[in-house]
Amino acid sequence: MTLIRRLSARQADFADQLAQLLAFDAALSPAVEQGARDIITAIRSRGDEALLEYTRRFDQREVAHVGELEWPAAELEAAYQRLPQAEQEALRIAAERIRRFHERQKQDSWQYTDDDGTLLGQQVTALDRVGIYVPGGKAAYPSSVLMNAIPAQVAGVSEIIMVSPLRGGAEQDRVLAAAWLAGVHRFFSIGGAQAVAALAYGTATIPAVDKITGPGNAWVAAAKRQVFGQVGIDMIAGPSEILVIADGQTPADWVAMDLFSQAEHDEVAQSILLCPDAAYLNAVEASIARLLPSLPRADIIRQSLANRGALIEVADLAEACLIANQIAPEHLELSVADPQALLPQIRHAGAIFMGAHTTESLGDYCAGPNHVLPTSRSARFSSPLGVYDFQKRSSLIQVSPKGADQLGQVADLLAQGEGLMAHALAARYRTRR
Amino acid sequence: MTLIRRLSARQADFADQLAQLLAFDAALSPAVEQGARDIITAIRSRGDEALLEYTRRFDQREVAHVGELEWPAAELEAAYQRLPQAEQEALRIAAERIRRFHERQKQDSWQYTDDDGTLLGQQVTALDRVGIYVPGGKAAYPSSVLMNAIPAQVAGVSEIIMVSPLRGGAEQDRVLAAAWLAGVHRFFSIGGAQAVAALAYGTATIPAVDKITGPGNAWVAAAKRQVFGQVGIDMIAGPSEILVIADGQTPADWVAMDLFSQAEHDEVAQSILLCPDAAYLNAVEASIARLLPSLPRADIIRQSLANRGALIEVADLAEACLIANQIAPEHLELSVADPQALLPQIRHAGAIFMGAHTTESLGDYCAGPNHVLPTSRSARFSSPLGVYDFQKRSSLIQVSPKGADQLGQVADLLAQGEGLMAHALAARYRTRR
Repeated sequence: MTLIRRLSARQADFADQLAQLLAFDAALSPAVEQGARDIITAIRSRGDEALLEYTRRFDQREVAHVGELEWPAAELEAAYQRLPQAEQEALRIAAERIRRFHERQKQDSWQYTDDDGTLLGQQVTALDRVGIYVPGGKAAYPSSVLMNAIPAQVAGVSEIIMVSPLRGGAEQDRVLAAAWLAGVHRFFSIGGAQAVAALAYGTATIPAVDKITGPGNAWVAAAKRQVFGQVGIDMIAGPSEILVIADGQTPADWVAMDLFSQAEHDEVAQSILLCPDAAYLNAVEASIARLLPSLPRADIIRQSLANRGALIEVADLAEACLIANQIAPEHLELSVADPQALLPQIRHAGAIFMGAHTTESLGDYCAGPNHVLPTSRSARFSSPLGVYDFQKRSSLIQVSPKGADQLGQVADLLAQGEGLMAHALAARYRTRR
Repeated sequence: MTLIRRLSARQADFADQLAQLLAFDAALSPAVEQGARDIITAIRSRGDEALLEYTRRFDQREVAHVGELEWPAAELEAAYQRLPQAEQEALRIAAERIRRFHERQKQDSWQYTDDDGTLLGQQVTALDRVGIYVPGGKAAYPSSVLMNAIPAQVAGVSEIIMVSPLRGGAEQDRVLAAAWLAGVHRFFSIGGAQAVAALAYGTATIPAVDKITGPGNAWVAAAKRQVFGQVGIDMIAGPSEILVIADGQTPADWVAMDLFSQAEHDEVAQSILLCPDAAYLNAVEASIARLLPSLPRADIIRQSLANRGALIEVADLAEACLIANQIAPEHLELSVADPQALLPQIRHAGAIFMGAHTTESLGDYCAGPNHVLPTSRSARFSSPLGVYDFQKRSSLIQVSPKGADQLGQVADLLAQGEGLMAHALAARYRTRR
């Protein structure tokens, strides 16, 4: 069995092959959809009581009151203090770099005044209260806590509420430590669709938030989709993807490991390499075969590469960029000697990692930019999670009497054309006629 | 029968009364949901052929090929030239002002270099191709064409495709004229869920777009919701709302007409006035009674005010601002002598109209800011449609060898903590160890 498929952009049926490679059926399970709907209905109508029932049933946790599921703020710092010093230091450096990058994203209000004295502008304010979901078990990543909470903190969100079905141990300590560093205000150990519903609608104990972000399983994703509108949500993430464009100068082992680092996330993650040099593709394939057996997640990687991986020979780097734009990958590595030369040719990618030293993994943890990125070709129209996701804008309009005279005539005429007479008259009242 | 309900924030049950006033059941019809789903499936599998069938069935239009439903670009300009000169001029002024405001929203790419030589940044690019939906019939508003297309044009979108089931006449001329002024590139006279599906997935004739914006009926809204993910969409709008905070100095007729101008949109639109002066509320009520019968849409206004309108007495303007933040209205008028004094107290609103001369209607047509605004309390977490909705960001990371040595050690440790060994090794390879 081959470890990873080989394709060439020269093949007559390459377009079909590529389409097939990228195809992914993200169909939702109707049972999960309906289950999430029922949970949301129950939380809306019975609040804390329903939340206690689901927490008992799904998380096997018995408490008399939802309040007991909240951890005192001091516990977050205590969790940080329990970590080995090297881990404390690594988390601190990562948080600091992420904060520094995100501070540049903060948007300011602006105003200007027209010739006729009319003031126009955009008032930018932070969201009041947001909820961050952190999955339990293996996928409880402290790095995700930093990446979700720090942009909210930088935006100036007054209250960041974290929820997670985590149940103690070193994993939970790391997550709580990250939450403390990232400025999380309150933490409830609840999870699943019931936690999402509680955050969206509020209960006697859980405060209603304005937006919910963070990854979760199918139930969490279904619930987020359903509460969208009542609150804001981040994108529902598809499988993770990496596309590497290589010129053949990067050590083959490095690129093989970069492909693995995506593939180890799960069996449907996607790792693709584009290179004009067939011999280099052979070398990477050999590295894959040699390095794979030593990795703890070798089985997952093997399935991911076999299912959805590819080494693709292209005519040149320009063709590689064209294909990259079609794929619009979540992560794009330009593992080439002169990445800046390729950059203007890249139109769609969540994050662009430039040069052989810039492995995606540095961006996942500590380079500074966010690791929550658009998947499944959505980089064509959406952006990394950022401070802008925790800010919103209000338009400002203050028309001077002189401006009202002129604009009123324009609005009057256009409103009549649309058959909206009250609009027309409201505008006409403000003219001098 | 009273025309509009009177409430007072002093009432003991005011919180309940307000909650009841704001409640709106936006439940989706399962039949429409399923119908839209079937249409999308048909368009995905049978493309143009299915599009022709639906266009025949729903729009009673017989053509042999979808290509015949595209209007030559010259027709858009011709429609503009057919308009009376005063209307041409009004549209032109509106388009120009909208463009000027939106140019200030354009975001630029940025980069910076760290002390260790690591380059970080954010590359901002326009979406490639967007679709704008314009409803047929009475709701075919030229102003909406300007408000949707101009931000896309300012963002630098290469191809703006408009679709609408319009069928000729003066209404269509106005819409096409606005499309021409706003830089729409192609126009297809198709509509409904089938037009949304064609734009999202593409057919042999209709090009697939990256984002779809614009209002539509329940079928269009259901289709947009379902194709979200495949393409971006704007918010699904709820009923339109206005909240006026008045100090009692604005002529009562003006405020009455402002309330009408929201109410005339439809029976579930919401118009609310907050004022500390009971006598002024009486005066506005009298204006409503006197002015209403003369309006062409009096029946709609009457129903809207009876169903969802309210005149609310408040203790003072500070309390009015608190209530406004709870309502998070789409349109907020500060019809007071010193609106700037209230502005810092306003946290959530789609657009803020300041001063007695700034009727919402001026903003709807020509002040400059967008009239596509967050409804149903979503101003708590979302923003007016803007240039930023037609731009997206890619993170840039180029780590220097020195930076990779330091960051690699941090990422190595954090990745191990998360049990992701390939991530750890990919980072470790880039260190000097």
